[in-house]
Amino acid sequence: MAKGIISRDEDYSQWYNDIVVRAGLADHSAVRGCMVIKPYGYAIWEKIQRQLDDMFKATGHQNAYFPLFIPKSFFSKEAAHVEGFAKECAIVTHYRLKNDPNGKGVVVDEDAKLEEELIVRPTSETIIWNTYKGWIQSYRDLPLLINQWANVVRWEMRTRLFLRTTEFLWQEGHTAHATREEAIEETIKMVNVYAEFVQNWMGVPVIIGTKSEGERFAGAVETYCIEALMQDGKALQAGTSHFLGQNFAKAFDVKFQSKEGTLEYVWATSWGVSTRLMGALVMAHSDDNGLVLPPKLAPTQVVFIPIYKTKEELEQITKKVNEIKTQLEKRGVSTQYDDRDTFKPGFKFAEYELKGYPIRVALGPKDLEKGTVEVARRDTLTKEFVQQEGVVDYIVNLLDTIQESIFRKAFDFRAEKTTKADTFDEFKRILDEKGGFVSAHWDGTRETEDRIKEETKATIRCIPIDNTAEEGVCILSGKPSKQRVLFARAY
Amino acid sequence: MAKGIISRDEDYSQWYNDIVVRAGLADHSAVRGCMVIKPYGYAIWEKIQRQLDDMFKATGHQNAYFPLFIPKSFFSKEAAHVEGFAKECAIVTHYRLKNDPNGKGVVVDEDAKLEEELIVRPTSETIIWNTYKGWIQSYRDLPLLINQWANVVRWEMRTRLFLRTTEFLWQEGHTAHATREEAIEETIKMVNVYAEFVQNWMGVPVIIGTKSEGERFAGAVETYCIEALMQDGKALQAGTSHFLGQNFAKAFDVKFQSKEGTLEYVWATSWGVSTRLMGALVMAHSDDNGLVLPPKLAPTQVVFIPIYKTKEELEQITKKVNEIKTQLEKRGVSTQYDDRDTFKPGFKFAEYELKGYPIRVALGPKDLEKGTVEVARRDTLTKEFVQQEGVVDYIVNLLDTIQESIFRKAFDFRAEKTTKADTFDEFKRILDEKGGFVSAHWDGTRETEDRIKEETKATIRCIPIDNTAEEGVCILSGKPSKQRVLFARAY
Repeated sequence: MAKGIISRDEDYSQWYNDIVVRAGLADHSAVRGCMVIKPYGYAIWEKIQRQLDDMFKATGHQNAYFPLFIPKSFFSKEAAHVEGFAKECAIVTHYRLKNDPNGKGVVVDEDAKLEEELIVRPTSETIIWNTYKGWIQSYRDLPLLINQWANVVRWEMRTRLFLRTTEFLWQEGHTAHATREEAIEETIKMVNVYAEFVQNWMGVPVIIGTKSEGERFAGAVETYCIEALMQDGKALQAGTSHFLGQNFAKAFDVKFQSKEGTLEYVWATSWGVSTRLMGALVMAHSDDNGLVLPPKLAPTQVVFIPIYKTKEELEQITKKVNEIKTQLEKRGVSTQYDDRDTFKPGFKFAEYELKGYPIRVALGPKDLEKGTVEVARRDTLTKEFVQQEGVVDYIVNLLDTIQESIFRKAFDFRAEKTTKADTFDEFKRILDEKGGFVSAHWDGTRETEDRIKEETKATIRCIPIDNTAEEGVCILSGKPSKQRVLFARAY
Repeated sequence: MAKGIISRDEDYSQWYNDIVVRAGLADHSAVRGCMVIKPYGYAIWEKIQRQLDDMFKATGHQNAYFPLFIPKSFFSKEAAHVEGFAKECAIVTHYRLKNDPNGKGVVVDEDAKLEEELIVRPTSETIIWNTYKGWIQSYRDLPLLINQWANVVRWEMRTRLFLRTTEFLWQEGHTAHATREEAIEETIKMVNVYAEFVQNWMGVPVIIGTKSEGERFAGAVETYCIEALMQDGKALQAGTSHFLGQNFAKAFDVKFQSKEGTLEYVWATSWGVSTRLMGALVMAHSDDNGLVLPPKLAPTQVVFIPIYKTKEELEQITKKVNEIKTQLEKRGVSTQYDDRDTFKPGFKFAEYELKGYPIRVALGPKDLEKGTVEVARRDTLTKEFVQQEGVVDYIVNLLDTIQESIFRKAFDFRAEKTTKADTFDEFKRILDEKGGFVSAHWDGTRETEDRIKEETKATIRCIPIDNTAEEGVCILSGKPSKQRVLFARAY
């Protein structure tokens, strides 16, 4: 176990916090509920951003930027949206400070009160659809496929680094379409983009599904989501894609002239993922030694550490390391050489384990003699001696192997932690004793959904899109049901 | 002159606004003083960001992210900073809305009043130095070289798209050093990075210099800046780099143990450029037909337009265009083929002129016969017939030529608009009749600086770093002076 990290078994929640802080990903700030994303954490976020951004552009989207502030009255325009959303948020009421007449710093200037308060965006549907009104007149202006990278604020009472913070970073796609079908197609396309990213890049398997009424986005007709399972058996919603129907178009009066010359309301989608993904990444793979990163998102994939006594040895090792390093960089592998003489190899080993570098290569005088290097895998904590000749190919392949292996491990874990329940007693017992996803029949009503949540703290995570029809009876009400849905306790 | 754009001569300020709006760069929003950055404008900003970010990383900096909100009391900690800065800003006082008891939307919940108000960051020195206190203990933690890409808010009374908006996007570097010398070196290094970027990428020549006391950043010991000249003869500050001494370290009590074992205050710098650069880019190069973009920052460098009557002609043209296009893309040139049949070529020509695409290539049946294409330069509005064979090399070279030519034109303009003045009358006459930079002797006092500003609206833009010593007398006070400084009316 690494210094300063409690074990998962002892306290999972504290373990998570220890990893995030000790590996240098993020830290609490002086502002309640807001985090500081530290350089190493931000470097991972940049890799996430870059890849997602490429995928958004490859699917025809463009980036734009909309105001941080939203006039208060905008929130009242879409009835369901205001009910579900806009209550816990940061409100700007004044625009000037002045010197405290008592000489104690600065105070709010009461003469500088805004006529209408501004809300720091918790999500941007309202300001964006108010803008789209000016951009969309004709079917020729559609589809409008826009994404925004931004910070948003939701006044959370209980916060946790990355998972739930008052301010967080995210992207929000907001698209406008001429037809219902095209908007639904876009909604599904984007939830699939998210699934591809989270599975192939983050190495986290997800279930794609739709939300039940109780879990749907405020203002959406249908919410698609990807749900992942963490090592403590709790689910985590990793991304959502909403089909908004014509709700926002009606609220902001956005109509277009169709090819046929009629005036129609525009169809909308919105979709987003956030720095919450960083939390999922940490919780899905890491162990008691620290972070475990999938190679595709590791800021540095391979670290080299010299083991030496004399200056001559170091020189020879350095020469060999630089040879291998250069070849790896040419193959697109990111590398680092830690030849600091102020720290011992053992200290360095622990540090890179803590930070989740996928591969560590050590080179000592014996290796020079034998023409070998020692290659250590972070995910399995296994070591192997590898011939220097061919080590570049070996490492390039090993990175792929690690990426797959991390995913496979999480996939098997989820399979093991997905259980069918046919009675409510069984359902509760599984939740308490085993955790994970519970697949069970539900009668489809909001009432039952709410009662199950109240009694067990488990929610319907999703109705999987590839669900098979199966006749059954609801675990709570005993009423007939046509399919199982996935329940879990969740973050 | 393009439709919807007034000429520069008629109304420079309106011309600027027309270009920004009509070329699709940005637009006013429903929120006072805040802009919407539209997809085409944001694509240019992304190119600016990417290049600057690469340059920051190449000089050893890492990105991180700090909170949007700053506790009010933080601003009072550095005396000069609060005086110069924190007054006009957005203040968050509440954290919850509730349903209006009268049924009219939502109102602020007075029960959810913050104990201490939060300021939306106008700049982040205070929150960052409060954080650095926890990160810096020893000389081994230094230097700390961190940059942040973020949005900031300054409550401006008179706003202008990109040039002065209430919310804007920027980057702010905040570094910590063990010695005064190292911090000064960093300050100068970064103003040089800015100068390199603005000159070589934006094609805008700049003067590097230091600010006089009256123009210095609030809390800085010395402010370095780059100053550019716009086509209307007004100067624009394009970036600043501040040596902050130990001011913020003292305000936030950030000390480190030196190699010698003593406890010392840390030395600081900060430096930033913003979406204001977009304004400089537009104003420096554009003409009455629209935007003129330097090839290095153009989202698309070459657009192809087919001229045809029959379907067969279009097919043949498309085949040829795709050939050339593919080869250009391989050479790293970004291209676009506009074969929309809903618009005539003349309409397309005007559109790409408006949007500043550096090169337009037209291909008609005659060109197919003769083996030529028509290549049009946006910057000079000249056209040439070029043999298809060799056109790829021609275009690759032409992009370099345009990049240089745009810079050269702006450089010559500035040279022509930089004038020496030896009396106050001459000084005022140049400002009124010719504009541009005026190089004049100044006695070095704040009092004279303020009086000149009051009487002429001209400010000291900078004291150029490569200034030559020259004995003279101050144009206003007649007192002795050792060097000329640069004055101008400015944005």
